[in-house]
Amino acid sequence: MISPFDGALTAGLYGDAEVAALFAGSAEVRSMLLVEGALARVEGGLGIIPEVSGRAIERAAREVVIDPVALADGMASAGVPVAALVAAFRRELGPEHGAWLHWGATSQDIVDTALVLRLRRVLEILDGRLERLVAALGDQAERHRATVIAARTRFRIATPTMLGAKIAVWTMPLIRHRTRLAELRPRLLRVSLAGASGTSAALEGRGGEVMRGLAAELGLAPAEVPWHAARDGVTELGGWLTLVTGSLGKIGQDLILLGQSEVGEVTAGTGGGSSTMPHKANPVGAEALVTLARLNAGTLGQLHAAMLHAEERDGSALGLEWFALPSLCAAAGAATRIAADLAGSLAAHPERIAATFAADRGLMLAEAAVFALAARMPRPAAQELVAAAVKATDAGGTLGQALAERVPDLAWDDVLDPARQTGDAEALVDRLRAAIASGMA
Amino acid sequence: MISPFDGALTAGLYGDAEVAALFAGSAEVRSMLLVEGALARVEGGLGIIPEVSGRAIERAAREVVIDPVALADGMASAGVPVAALVAAFRRELGPEHGAWLHWGATSQDIVDTALVLRLRRVLEILDGRLERLVAALGDQAERHRATVIAARTRFRIATPTMLGAKIAVWTMPLIRHRTRLAELRPRLLRVSLAGASGTSAALEGRGGEVMRGLAAELGLAPAEVPWHAARDGVTELGGWLTLVTGSLGKIGQDLILLGQSEVGEVTAGTGGGSSTMPHKANPVGAEALVTLARLNAGTLGQLHAAMLHAEERDGSALGLEWFALPSLCAAAGAATRIAADLAGSLAAHPERIAATFAADRGLMLAEAAVFALAARMPRPAAQELVAAAVKATDAGGTLGQALAERVPDLAWDDVLDPARQTGDAEALVDRLRAAIASGMA
Amino acid sequence: MISPFDGALTAGLYGDAEVAALFAGSAEVRSMLLVEGALARVEGGLGIIPEVSGRAIERAAREVVIDPVALADGMASAGVPVAALVAAFRRELGPEHGAWLHWGATSQDIVDTALVLRLRRVLEILDGRLERLVAALGDQAERHRATVIAARTRFRIATPTMLGAKIAVWTMPLIRHRTRLAELRPRLLRVSLAGASGTSAALEGRGGEVMRGLAAELGLAPAEVPWHAARDGVTELGGWLTLVTGSLGKIGQDLILLGQSEVGEVTAGTGGGSSTMPHKANPVGAEALVTLARLNAGTLGQLHAAMLHAEERDGSALGLEWFALPSLCAAAGAATRIAADLAGSLAAHPERIAATFAADRGLMLAEAAVFALAARMPRPAAQELVAAAVKATDAGGTLGQALAERVPDLAWDDVLDPARQTGDAEALVDRLRAAIASGMA
Amino acid sequence: MISPFDGALTAGLYGDAEVAALFAGSAEVRSMLLVEGALARVEGGLGIIPEVSGRAIERAAREVVIDPVALADGMASAGVPVAALVAAFRRELGPEHGAWLHWGATSQDIVDTALVLRLRRVLEILDGRLERLVAALGDQAERHRATVIAARTRFRIATPTMLGAKIAVWTMPLIRHRTRLAELRPRLLRVSLAGASGTSAALEGRGGEVMRGLAAELGLAPAEVPWHAARDGVTELGGWLTLVTGSLGKIGQDLILLGQSEVGEVTAGTGGGSSTMPHKANPVGAEALVTLARLNAGTLGQLHAAMLHAEERDGSALGLEWFALPSLCAAAGAATRIAADLAGSLAAHPERIAATFAADRGLMLAEAAVFALAARMPRPAAQELVAAAVKATDAGGTLGQALAERVPDLAWDDVLDPARQTGDAEALVDRLRAAIASGMA
Repeated sequence: MISPFDGALTAGLYGDAEVAALFAGSAEVRSMLLVEGALARVEGGLGIIPEVSGRAIERAAREVVIDPVALADGMASAGVPVAALVAAFRRELGPEHGAWLHWGATSQDIVDTALVLRLRRVLEILDGRLERLVAALGDQAERHRATVIAARTRFRIATPTMLGAKIAVWTMPLIRHRTRLAELRPRLLRVSLAGASGTSAALEGRGGEVMRGLAAELGLAPAEVPWHAARDGVTELGGWLTLVTGSLGKIGQDLILLGQSEVGEVTAGTGGGSSTMPHKANPVGAEALVTLARLNAGTLGQLHAAMLHAEERDGSALGLEWFALPSLCAAAGAATRIAADLAGSLAAHPERIAATFAADRGLMLAEAAVFALAARMPRPAAQELVAAAVKATDAGGTLGQALAERVPDLAWDDVLDPARQTGDAEALVDRLRAAIASGMA
Repeated sequence: MISPFDGALTAGLYGDAEVAALFAGSAEVRSMLLVEGALARVEGGLGIIPEVSGRAIERAAREVVIDPVALADGMASAGVPVAALVAAFRRELGPEHGAWLHWGATSQDIVDTALVLRLRRVLEILDGRLERLVAALGDQAERHRATVIAARTRFRIATPTMLGAKIAVWTMPLIRHRTRLAELRPRLLRVSLAGASGTSAALEGRGGEVMRGLAAELGLAPAEVPWHAARDGVTELGGWLTLVTGSLGKIGQDLILLGQSEVGEVTAGTGGGSSTMPHKANPVGAEALVTLARLNAGTLGQLHAAMLHAEERDGSALGLEWFALPSLCAAAGAATRIAADLAGSLAAHPERIAATFAADRGLMLAEAAVFALAARMPRPAAQELVAAAVKATDAGGTLGQALAERVPDLAWDDVLDPARQTGDAEALVDRLRAAIASGMA
Repeated sequence: MISPFDGALTAGLYGDAEVAALFAGSAEVRSMLLVEGALARVEGGLGIIPEVSGRAIERAAREVVIDPVALADGMASAGVPVAALVAAFRRELGPEHGAWLHWGATSQDIVDTALVLRLRRVLEILDGRLERLVAALGDQAERHRATVIAARTRFRIATPTMLGAKIAVWTMPLIRHRTRLAELRPRLLRVSLAGASGTSAALEGRGGEVMRGLAAELGLAPAEVPWHAARDGVTELGGWLTLVTGSLGKIGQDLILLGQSEVGEVTAGTGGGSSTMPHKANPVGAEALVTLARLNAGTLGQLHAAMLHAEERDGSALGLEWFALPSLCAAAGAATRIAADLAGSLAAHPERIAATFAADRGLMLAEAAVFALAARMPRPAAQELVAAAVKATDAGGTLGQALAERVPDLAWDDVLDPARQTGDAEALVDRLRAAIASGMA
Repeated sequence: MISPFDGALTAGLYGDAEVAALFAGSAEVRSMLLVEGALARVEGGLGIIPEVSGRAIERAAREVVIDPVALADGMASAGVPVAALVAAFRRELGPEHGAWLHWGATSQDIVDTALVLRLRRVLEILDGRLERLVAALGDQAERHRATVIAARTRFRIATPTMLGAKIAVWTMPLIRHRTRLAELRPRLLRVSLAGASGTSAALEGRGGEVMRGLAAELGLAPAEVPWHAARDGVTELGGWLTLVTGSLGKIGQDLILLGQSEVGEVTAGTGGGSSTMPHKANPVGAEALVTLARLNAGTLGQLHAAMLHAEERDGSALGLEWFALPSLCAAAGAATRIAADLAGSLAAHPERIAATFAADRGLMLAEAAVFALAARMPRPAAQELVAAAVKATDAGGTLGQALAERVPDLAWDDVLDPARQTGDAEALVDRLRAAIASGMA
C-alpha cells in the first residue's frame, strides 16, 4: 500500500482498524447506498416518487451488495463514483423502482452525506478515546502529584516541578479538544442535498422539504444553503484532528526526551527492541505520536487549500479533500490508540529522578535562592550573589555549599530542597481534576 | 522588507495598516510594558511587593518609552526580548521600585500575555470587518436574488441559478466564522502567569491569586494550568484565520472566473491596468484573495508544527509561532480589507449573462428537460431522449428545437426558460438573510 | 483504503499500478531480502562470513517467501520491520547459515538500501514516461504551431499567440526535469551500510570494503559517509517529484481553463459524464493533475520536516519519510500516466477559437495597434489614442472600426489580423524542438 | 514588522542583513531600473529604438532615484509595480527618450529579471558562506577525529563513535548542496523578455535577438521559451534553500540534544541567559536553526503551489511567490549566519562525555560483546548471553563484570573499551576531508 496507515508491514504501528474500516471501499459504498435509500424513502413519504418505490429502494439499499472494485472504472471516467453506483444499483432494482433512484440529487450530495455519516462515527470513536485518555492521564497525574522532577525549559534543566503538573499540562488541551468537538459537530454533521447546481431545481420547489426530511431520517442537521462549494465544515474538522494529533505529539516528544538514556526518568510503552543492540528499548510509540503530529500538520494545509473550491462544484478541490481528510482521520485514530497505550503504561523511575537532582548539585534551585535572598537584600544583589555561587560550583561542590559560604545564616537545606520548591505544582493537579470533573478546561 | 505585508512596494496591495500596527516593534514593547505594569499593580495590591512600588511601576509602564531596536541585541542573545526590556525599564525605574519589577514572572509569561492583548484587538478588528462584510454581501444577495446566471460545476456550465444564491453560498461560512470566533475567544484570551517552570514557585503559594488578579486586571480569562507549552489556543486561532482567508479566497477565485474575458458576467474591484495592454482590467483584488488563502494554508502547517513544544518551554517551537501567527493575522487583515472593497463594488453585467445563455443554446436546461419528460416516461428513457437531442445540437440549433422535433406537445419554451428553472435559488437568499438576522448559519 | 492512490473506488482515477506495485508490502519484503542476500554474498566473498553461508543466504533470499503481514507485529513493536524479517528468514535458513545473516548491518541499512532499489525503478518508469510525454507534446506543438489562439494573462484575454507556443511553455520544464533527474540520480542511488551507529564497528575495520562491495553488487554508488541521518538525497527526490507534478498540474489547470464551457478551445481526455446533466463532459483528468500537484506541494513539506533527523538515527523522522515519499512517488506516477492520456488526446476546436476572436472584436490587438501607431507618433500619444478607441467599442463595433475612424490611413485589417500578430510564437515551437533534440532546455 | 526576519526586536536573532538588503524596496527598484536601462541600451544598439535614447535611458537608470513608497499605490492598483515605475521614470526622462522606455517588455519581464539579478547575489552570498562553513566543520571534524562519544539512535545511547564522525555526517550534505547549486544556477539565472503574452510580438520578429542581447548585457542565460508561467527555476531554488536550512536544522537539533543539561557533551554558540534562572544558558542559536528549518519546510509548499500558474501569466500565483521566495532566502541567510557562529564556537566537554560512559556502565558495548562472542559461538547464542548480562546489570555493576562472570576468559576490558569500538569513525573524517578537497560528496 502507498500509505503506512494500511500497509501490510506498517498498519500495526501506524494504523487504526476502527477508523480504517470506515474508509474502506465497502464502507463507502454501504454509506452511499444508505443515503440513496433514505432519500428514496423520504421522497416516497412526501409523494415525490411513488411510495412503494421509496420503500423498495430503501429496503434494497440495505441488502444489495455492490463491489467497490466494480465501480472503479466509472469513478475513473466520471471523477465521482455515484453514476456507476446508481447504474449498478438500478440494475439490481429493475426498471420500475430504479427509475426513481437518486431522484433530485447530484453525485456530490450522495458522496458528501455518505462521508458525513462515516465522520459521525469517526468522531464518536475519537471522542470516546479522548474521554478515556483524559481519565487515564488524570489518574496518572494524581498518582504522580508529588513525584518531584526537574522541569526543562529550552532543553535545559530549569527548576523542580511535579510529574503530575507535567501531566496536567498535557491533559488540559485534550479536555478543550472535547469542547471544541462538541462545538463543531453541528456545523459538520449536516446533510447535503441540493442537486446539480445547488438549487434543487429537479425537486421543483420541494427541495427544502426533502433536504430537511433526509436530514431528519439520517439524524443530521439540515443545510439551509448548500455546502457543495463551502467547505468550512470539513476543513474545521481537519483543524480539530490536527490539534488532537499536535497535543498528543507533544506528549510523545516529552516522553522521548524524558526517556532518553541520559534521563530515563519517565518511560511509557512497550517494545522497541533493536535488531543489533540488545540493550536498547526504543520509544516506538512516542516516536509515532511525533510522526503523526508532523504528518497532520502538513496534511492540514492540503485541506485548507481545497477551500478554494471553484464556483458551484470543483473536482480538483474535492479530490484534494479525498486525499487529506481520511489521512487526517486515520492519523488521529492511530495517535489516540497509541496515546492510550502510553498513558496506561507510563511509569516514573525515582532512582533516575534522584540521579538528576544529584548531578544538578542544586543549580536548578538557583531561582529559589534568589527569592530567598531577596527577602533580605535587593533582588539585583541577590541575583549577583547567586550567580557568583553558581559560577563557584564549576570547581565542584553543590550550590548549597557555595551559598552557605557566602550567606551562612540561611536555612539552605530547606531553601534548596526540591520538594519544597515546586510552587503550585500540586495545585495544578487539583485544577486538572476539577477541569476533568466539569469538562471545562 | 522580506514580507510583502509590509514591503514598501507591496504594502498597498497585501498589507493592512490596522493589523500591521499591532505587530510593530513599538506595539510589542508597549504591550509587554503594560503587562509588567499590571502585574506589579496586582502584586502591590496583594502585598507581595510594596504597594508603592506596584503603583510606581504601573504608572511608569504607561509612560516610559523604550526603543525596540535597543532590545534587539538582548533578544538575539537570549532568544526572548524580556530580559533586555526588564533591564532597560529597571534603569528607568531606579533601584527602589526596579527591584520589584517582573516579580515571579518568566519571560514567556510576559511575551504570551502581551501577545494575547494584541490578538484581542486583532480579533475585534476582524470580527467587525466580517460583520460588515456579511451585511454587504447580504445586501448584494438581496439585490441579485433574481439575477439569473449560469451555475458552473467542474468548470462547465451546469444549470441556471441566481447570482443571489451564489452570494449566499459565499456568505454562510462567514457567519459561521463569527460563531467560531465567539467560541474560541475564551480559550485564547487567557493570561499567562506561571513562572520559570509553570509552577509559580517564586510566588510562594500565591501564584493562583496573582494569576487571577492579573487576568482580571487585563480583562482576560485565567489560565488554571499554564499554557507555556500547551499551544492549542493560538493554534486554534491560526486555523480560524485560515478558514477566514480560505472562504474569502473562494470568493476571489469565483470572481476571477466570473470576470474572465470570455465570461464577464460579474466583476468587482477597481484597478488592474496593464503596462502594455490598454484594453485590460486585471482582477487584482480577487487574485490577492486567492494568494492570501493559499499563503495561509501553508503557513498554518508551520503553526501546527509548533504544537510540538518540548517539555516546559521550547525556544525553537516558540520561534516558529512568532513567524507563523503574525503572518496569518496579517493575511486575514488584508483579505478582509480587500473583500470589503470587492463586496461593495460587485456588479453584474446582464448583457454578458444573456450572451452566455444564448451561446449555450439551452443545453444547461438538459436536466430540466429530463425531469419534464420523466413525468411521462421512465427516467432512463427521458435521459436517452434528451441525450440524443443534446447530440443533435452539435449540428446547430438549440436544445429546444431539437426537443420539439422529438416531443412536439410539450411547452418547451417554459421548460427551458432559465428563470423558471432555478429551483430554490431565491429561497437560498431568504435563508441567508434569516441566518444573518439570527447570527446562526 | 485510507489513500485514494489505492482505494478500491479511486485507484482507477488517482492510482498508478506500476508505481503502486513497488510499494506493496511484498515488494518491500522482496527488496529487503535481496539486500540481505547481496550483503551475505559480498561478505562471503571477502571471507568475513563463511563463503558457503554467503552463497546459501543469497540463494535463499531469492527464493524464500515471507508474508509481510507476518512481520506486522514485529514492525509495530520495533518500529522497523527488519528484526522480524531477519528472524523469519533465519528460521527458514536454519542455524548454520542463519547465524551469518544480517552480519554487520543495522535495520535502517536494509530498509534504506531496499528503498533505493525500488526508487531506482520508480525513476526509470517516470523518466521513460517523461521522455514519451515530451515527445508527444512536441508533436502536438508542431501540429499546432500555427493554430492561432488567444493568450490569457491574469485571467483576461491578452494578445494572440499560437497553441504550439502554449505547448512549448508547458513542455520546456519537463525537459529540464529530465536533466535534473540525471543530476540527482547519483546522489540518491547509494547503498546504505554503516551499522548500528554509522561506524560499521561490527565489521571490525572492513566496513568500507563491504559497503563498496555491496554497492557494486547492487549497481548503486557507495556512501562514503553514512546517510542514516543525512536525508538530503531522498528529500531532493521529493522536490523533483513535486516539480514534476507541479509542471503537469499547470498543464491540467490550463486545460481546465481552455476547456470551460465559455471557452472550449482546447480539450483533452475522455470521460467526465455527469450523473444528472447529460450535456456535460467534465475535465476529470485535468482536474486530477491539479489535485495531484496541490497534494504533492503539501506533502513535500512533510519530507523536508523529516530532514530534522536527530543524532545517529531517529524513528520519528524516518516514519515521516515513510508517509511522504511513497505518496510523492505515487502522485508523480498517476500524474505522468494521466498527462500521457491528455497529451495524446489533446484537440483544438477552431470554431470556438474563431468565436473568441469574434467576440473580442479586435480588443486583444490593442497593443499591436499601439505599436503600429508608435511608428508615426510618440508612444504615449499612441496609447492614448488606442485607449480612446477601446473605450469607444463599449458602444458596439470592433476596435478596427473605432481606429479607422480615428486614423483612416493605416492598414488596420493587417495590423489587427491575429495571425500576423503572434510574434515569435512559431519560433518558440522551433526552440522547443531544438531543446527536445538536444535534451537541453 | 510582520516578519521576524526584519522585526525591530527580532532581526538580530532571525535576520540577515546582507540578504535583507537585497529584498528592500530600494533594491527592488534599483534592480528593475537596471533591467530597463540594459534593455534600452540593447535595443538602441540593435536600432530598434534610437541609439541615443538607449544610451540616455541606461545612463539615467543608473542615476535616477525613485522612492519605492511612491510606487505603492500603482502597485496596489495594478498588482505589479512596473507601470508606476515606468511612469515615474518617464517623467524624469522627458518625452523624447521616455517614449522608448520599456519597449517591447511586459511588467513581469522586468520584475522577474530584476529578481534574478538579486537572486544571483543571494546565491553568491550563500555559496560563500557554505564554503566557509564546510571548511570550519572540516576543521572541527579533524580536531575531534578521536573524541570518543556516544552515538544515539532513536533517542537512546547506541554504541561509541567519534565526534568527528558526527560532524562528517553533518557536513557531507553541505558539500552536496554546493554541487546542487552549481547545477541549478544556469536554469535559474535566466533573463525574462517575452512581452505581453510571451511572443515578443511588439518587437516584430526581433524578440529573440533582444532577449539574447539583454541576457548577454546582464550576464544571464537566455530563455529560449518564456518562463512567465513556467516557474520550475525559482521553485527548484526554493527546494535548494530548504535543503540547506534542513541540513543546518539537523545540526541545530543535534546541538540542542548534545547540549541538554543531562548530556552537556558538546555546546556551541554564546548567549542564552534566562530572565529568572541565573544558572541557565539556553541554546538560542541551535533553536533558531530548528525554527528556520521548520519554517522553510512549510514555506516551500507555498512556492510549489505557485507552480500552478494559469495560462500566460497569473497574478495570484505570482503573488504567492513574492511571499514565499524572499522568506526562503532570508531563512537560508539567517541559518548560514548562525551556523557559522555555532561551527566556530563548537566545543566538546570531555568530563561530560566521560560521565556518560561511566553512567552507561558498558551497556553501549553490548553489540561489540555480541560480536566478540560470536567468534566462539553462534550469534543467536551470543545475543542471548549478552542479553542476560545486560539484564543482570539492572541490579548494579557494569556489563563487563556481568560478562566476565559468564565468560571469564575473554579480554572484556579490551572488547568494552569505547575507544576501540568506534569502527570506521575516524575513517569517516578522512572521507569527509577527501570530499571537501574534491568538492564531491
